Amino acid sequence: MRKFMLSLMALSCLTVSAQFGAPRQNPVVPSVVANVTEDFKPAKTNQDGKQYPMVNSQRMVRAQISAPKASFVGLDIAGKIYEMTKDENGLWTGTSEPQDEGFHYYQLNIDGASVPDPGSKYYYGASRWGSGIDVPAADEEFYTVKNVPQGSVNEVYYWSTVTEKMRHGYIYLPAEYYQNPTKKFPVLYLQHGMGENETGWSAQGKTGIIMDNLIAEGKAVPFVIFMDNGLDVRRPGEQGGFGGPRPQGGQRPQGGPGQGGPRRGFGGFNAFQDVLLKDIIPMVEKNYRVIADTEHRAMAGLSMGGMQTHSITLANPTTFAYVGMFSGGTFNTDELKDAADFKKTNKVLFMSAGGKETRMAEGDNSVGKAAENLKAIGINAHSYVSPGTAHEWQTWRRSLYQFAQLLFK
Amino acid sequence: MRKFMLSLMALSCLTVSAQFGAPRQNPVVPSVVANVTEDFKPAKTNQDGKQYPMVNSQRMVRAQISAPKASFVGLDIAGKIYEMTKDENGLWTGTSEPQDEGFHYYQLNIDGASVPDPGSKYYYGASRWGSGIDVPAADEEFYTVKNVPQGSVNEVYYWSTVTEKMRHGYIYLPAEYYQNPTKKFPVLYLQHGMGENETGWSAQGKTGIIMDNLIAEGKAVPFVIFMDNGLDVRRPGEQGGFGGPRPQGGQRPQGGPGQGGPRRGFGGFNAFQDVLLKDIIPMVEKNYRVIADTEHRAMAGLSMGGMQTHSITLANPTTFAYVGMFSGGTFNTDELKDAADFKKTNKVLFMSAGGKETRMAEGDNSVGKAAENLKAIGINAHSYVSPGTAHEWQTWRRSLYQFAQLLFK
Repeated sequence: MRKFMLSLMALSCLTVSAQFGAPRQNPVVPSVVANVTEDFKPAKTNQDGKQYPMVNSQRMVRAQISAPKASFVGLDIAGKIYEMTKDENGLWTGTSEPQDEGFHYYQLNIDGASVPDPGSKYYYGASRWGSGIDVPAADEEFYTVKNVPQGSVNEVYYWSTVTEKMRHGYIYLPAEYYQNPTKKFPVLYLQHGMGENETGWSAQGKTGIIMDNLIAEGKAVPFVIFMDNGLDVRRPGEQGGFGGPRPQGGQRPQGGPGQGGPRRGFGGFNAFQDVLLKDIIPMVEKNYRVIADTEHRAMAGLSMGGMQTHSITLANPTTFAYVGMFSGGTFNTDELKDAADFKKTNKVLFMSAGGKETRMAEGDNSVGKAAENLKAIGINAHSYVSPGTAHEWQTWRRSLYQFAQLLFK
Repeated sequence: MRKFMLSLMALSCLTVSAQFGAPRQNPVVPSVVANVTEDFKPAKTNQDGKQYPMVNSQRMVRAQISAPKASFVGLDIAGKIYEMTKDENGLWTGTSEPQDEGFHYYQLNIDGASVPDPGSKYYYGASRWGSGIDVPAADEEFYTVKNVPQGSVNEVYYWSTVTEKMRHGYIYLPAEYYQNPTKKFPVLYLQHGMGENETGWSAQGKTGIIMDNLIAEGKAVPFVIFMDNGLDVRRPGEQGGFGGPRPQGGQRPQGGPGQGGPRRGFGGFNAFQDVLLKDIIPMVEKNYRVIADTEHRAMAGLSMGGMQTHSITLANPTTFAYVGMFSGGTFNTDELKDAADFKKTNKVLFMSAGGKETRMAEGDNSVGKAAENLKAIGINAHSYVSPGTAHEWQTWRRSLYQFAQLLFK
């Protein structure tokens, strides 16, 4: 378990700069100037009417900003700071190497200050609200808004008996929820990753759009999704938790899941488990027309949210019939071979990873190998590897697209 | 009408820098150092865990950012750039003069680049996503989240027959909408101002929080609110519209309201009117449990949204029974004295302004004088002046709080 968590933390750090409070300084490299195809277009994630940042057909990102008095401006993306160049009007421009398909966090560096790019929309990730860019993908249709029956992503506050405060989450209700006022629906509880929050799955993840499209095509049954913050859970009087400060060595979970007692630090898993089981699920089942039984309840998450899913569904084996871990490691046969309750309850166990997450995508520790082993002990295990993507949102959009088609059927 | 519109545009420009595409450069002034009470606290609008910006009990704003290699860093708020000072670690700090209670857009200037402050959350206004700060107000309880029955603010897409594209808006549904699945509700159509978008009323305006609190206290009846984008309406083949570029002289509306034919430029009022009447209202009345008649339909808006309300309710006098203009000028008796349909239909006509918007708050052109004149011709007119606030969101939060209590009773 320890080795597993450390490797996941390492993975996160490799791919998301400034993952924890204090940002690491990425290396400065020259802006790309050779073999650049000049067919740049404004990114879809730009603010309305803003031309920059742009992306070309090689998936290079080009940023531009006016900073007449600056001595250095850099485009900070995917672990490198591309040094931008200034024209006679004080306009700085720079171009990155090709990026993977899909969504990436990035920022500008102006004379040592790391700031959002005024051209982009802003997203919460890497422990800050900041710039994001969507690089066109061959399969982007599945997360593009279409003229199909529309559900909605709803911002809700609710009282938490665990934290003794109002908390904030989002609930996706499918179109049929509004059209058919007597029907009840199954529910998926869906969690974000380290350094992200409850906005990630709808904004970067495009959850509502993916679901509306899947349901319209008849590929998924309509279900409700609740998305909460798995990092900001602090019991009354508790300090810190997980929003800002860098976790210290040794702040990993102590003991196995579900052993009770307060566990702080990495994931605040125990406190979040309490919020999920004592606050969120009862609130959703009271306020919304959902089917309040195990067979119609799923949990999934990405990265740290996948680890929370792992821990919480193992500790509460009869609560969720469907389980998904996206870039969050694997279940192994030792954990499950004697877990009678889990095996009896579980209908689908789904594990996925990005193709560039090689430890999880290939070989003996892969999601594919894990699924094979789990099938051998009677688990309905599924695996998925997202082609050409890393520990980023394109992997998780695709994972949701795959997982949703397996649920509640 | 022309004079009215020009004065409103001037008002907007006075209070919101960078209102249109090309930002004006505000004057640089020294950071405040004398008579500063050192009781600064992180602003409520900060990103989780971020200490800066801060506000003190004098309502001064203090910003801080690390920019080791910069030669100039300024805090750009309320029309002035406060020159910040650098310490030996490259950390720049600066303090503004006292600000009005409530919400303000602001930004940082780093060596000539106008950028969002990495410490704040981001809001759409002044024609960009950027920093905002909430300065504590004596009456902030009314827009503070409380443990009362919670409605939700829902993100929805819908097909527009007018623009032939999917459009994006938000709908507030009160708690009872979920609890009582057979009840139908009245609807308010609520519009933002120039340089803002469909996110403004829920994010800066705190619409959902204000309504949940009002309903819980029994001060407002439960109703649905739809919030759309009144600036981005482009008919197929039309260029520009209103999102980005500076309006040219002469781009004011031609002719009176409701005379048909495409009207471009300021407000895109005719195109937005079409979207509201042909797309939004039918969609809301089809997809949600609302009472689809005039007596249960209201329209209101702030600033430009108030002008749109003025224009659209005059041109469609039997469509809305309740009308509100917040910092959007006034109706006058000449317009209404012979408007039989409007007078027969209208149940409440509400006009408000900030106390610092002196042209609308005081004297012969004030909302109070207009209400008095309109009452004399048989209109149930109401006025409200928000104490000590300008053409900003605190005025409009308070206006909604007042207006909502008059609706559908």
